[in-house]
Amino acid sequence: MPRWDPKAQERLRAAALELFVEQGYENTTVTQITERAGLTRRTFSRYFTDKRDVLFAGSEQLPDAVSAAVLRADATLPPFQALLAALADIGGLFADLVPHAAQRRAIIASSPELQERERTKLAAVAEALAAALRERGATTSEAKLLAQVGIAVFQTAFERWTDQPEHADFTACVHETVAELASSLAPTAALVTTPEPESS
Amino acid sequence: MPRWDPKAQERLRAAALELFVEQGYENTTVTQITERAGLTRRTFSRYFTDKRDVLFAGSEQLPDAVSAAVLRADATLPPFQALLAALADIGGLFADLVPHAAQRRAIIASSPELQERERTKLAAVAEALAAALRERGATTSEAKLLAQVGIAVFQTAFERWTDQPEHADFTACVHETVAELASSLAPTAALVTTPEPESS
Repeated sequence: MPRWDPKAQERLRAAALELFVEQGYENTTVTQITERAGLTRRTFSRYFTDKRDVLFAGSEQLPDAVSAAVLRADATLPPFQALLAALADIGGLFADLVPHAAQRRAIIASSPELQERERTKLAAVAEALAAALRERGATTSEAKLLAQVGIAVFQTAFERWTDQPEHADFTACVHETVAELASSLAPTAALVTTPEPESS
Repeated sequence: MPRWDPKAQERLRAAALELFVEQGYENTTVTQITERAGLTRRTFSRYFTDKRDVLFAGSEQLPDAVSAAVLRADATLPPFQALLAALADIGGLFADLVPHAAQRRAIIASSPELQERERTKLAAVAEALAAALRERGATTSEAKLLAQVGIAVFQTAFERWTDQPEHADFTACVHETVAELASSLAPTAALVTTPEPESS
């Protein structure tokens, strides 16, 4: 048996997600997961530390990966566009999640413990994003706002894309989400930026 | 001694925040707080369940208050404007926090436990906001996006306002934050919504 087998990892992931959906995350054991996958606990341990790790494997790399991607984005891009370019750039890190994205969301929504873990993960990503945007010249306040909004846009676009992957590519989903958000903000933004047109 | 004394509550809050800043949240006891305030533990218990509650008292009312305010906003307002109107409407709930807002932020930033509590609180508010926006006709995806962005805008505007309360009223800070965000989104939104102008 090879030391590293993406198919074994994927079989374990698929088995775990199936069981989490069927009988609940809390009620599922690692033994049940390995039995469903037809693999050993030893194989499981090669890929995941525990059952929670099936849902979050790789997420500890996200803050550094996102930050590096923001910093290497084209220097001419303004902060929010650099952020979006960075999220597209590291899209490969999410590839494993795509086939199971809807299942994963439902499982996380079912457990306060998992929701908290997901929020902690996203907060670490937001902090890394904000730090990278400050390095690109954004103020502290602007960087924090854009990082939080960037994550909200990313989550929305990712959900739309993984719900209907045949309809568009991921970048198109991101741009559509941003356009929709911009149009929601427009009436309020106009109160500040646009003087009333003079009647002629 | 009166049964309910806003001055006693405020003295306890001020003493607690001072001690959290001086010696750290973890190292501060309720006894130290009551000694600093010159009040008894019994008085403390009348206003707060524990030292964490000094930072979060009232936050359990926020989701319902926010949701009700969204639902009673002018029926002609589009979703995001209804959300902003709701946040302005319930601004009174934050009045107690204003004098100590910067201190409170620093204390929360110093403790992973408090950060987690703050995220859990904001997630509950976001969920209530999204549910209210759905009742006003937003799609699930749009409601979730606008709720998350609304909270990011609110946090940014509240920080700016409490850092420099003399400069503007809170609503002006919200509008400026929205205008700034709209201008950050504009280049990406233009990729979707605005066709290239024809050269004449």
